[in-house]
Amino acid sequence: MDAELKRSLKECGALLYGDFTLASGKKSRYYIDIKKASTDPKVLAQIADSMAREMTTWDSMPDRIAGVMLGSIPLAVALSLRTGIPFVMVRKEKKEHGTGKQIEGALEPGESVLVVEDVITSAGSSAEAVNILRAAGGKVAEVITVIDRQEGGEAKLGGLGVRLHALLTAEDVLRG
Amino acid sequence: MDAELKRSLKECGALLYGDFTLASGKKSRYYIDIKKASTDPKVLAQIADSMAREMTTWDSMPDRIAGVMLGSIPLAVALSLRTGIPFVMVRKEKKEHGTGKQIEGALEPGESVLVVEDVITSAGSSAEAVNILRAAGGKVAEVITVIDRQEGGEAKLGGLGVRLHALLTAEDVLRG
Repeated sequence: MDAELKRSLKECGALLYGDFTLASGKKSRYYIDIKKASTDPKVLAQIADSMAREMTTWDSMPDRIAGVMLGSIPLAVALSLRTGIPFVMVRKEKKEHGTGKQIEGALEPGESVLVVEDVITSAGSSAEAVNILRAAGGKVAEVITVIDRQEGGEAKLGGLGVRLHALLTAEDVLRG
Repeated sequence: MDAELKRSLKECGALLYGDFTLASGKKSRYYIDIKKASTDPKVLAQIADSMAREMTTWDSMPDRIAGVMLGSIPLAVALSLRTGIPFVMVRKEKKEHGTGKQIEGALEPGESVLVVEDVITSAGSSAEAVNILRAAGGKVAEVITVIDRQEGGEAKLGGLGVRLHALLTAEDVLRG
């Protein structure tokens, strides 16, 4: 667990404790407003540092980083600047006008892609991004997220052959 | 003119010379594929450095930086990380579902906002962003862009009381 990051998320108001009812109707003892963290350059840099540190334990570095519109684009950009690895931006829905491109930025077939997320719940959005990147020829085996709410995301991604790395889990968040 | 940036844009393939017909039907002797620059962390960092340098000549620093979806978000993030000024993200069209928020990130009424752009042509998109930010209470007096194609953008923004700062103009680009 990245205790320093947890402290920063609390301090910037991105992590709140109380009794919350989520959009899904579920009750929660915490609430995440991750944009409060990702639009604050100090916390954003801290997130990128923490992700880069996690990546140093991996066997190999990805060829590309992918951010998913809109929430995780700042995280992908910050991690790209921190590591020197170029990034792409994934639109989950096709543009209504224009080229209809779902991936912005260069991605060559066979390149390995790390998907960056802000919050993972059931990972539906990440799974969609993985499928879009694979359809374009990318090899996706890793997703990294700031928070894993531990509501089935890891298993869902596992079913796609993708490992989930989380800087903080719901368990970490709830632990004091 | 930022000659080093111009060289980098050529080297990464973002700036091409030749005979091009633009989407508008107009002929052009150069073509800008700015995403090639903004998704390359080296060039992105160089753009942010160049913008930050330009800002040091200003009387005061903005309270917020604004990126416009999707193209200039990476530039806004990089400039935010470089300067320590927080950023917001502006959607030009309302979300079809969800909250319909056009501005993501915190913006308090009365705060000064610097709009960051990648390429300005007639500045229609920037003018729209200026209006959205002003409607939310932001004070917008400056737009900074990587390239000003010099096709009416400066005058259009001037009409809104907004100064345009360009790292490179069409004239700079065409000068050899």
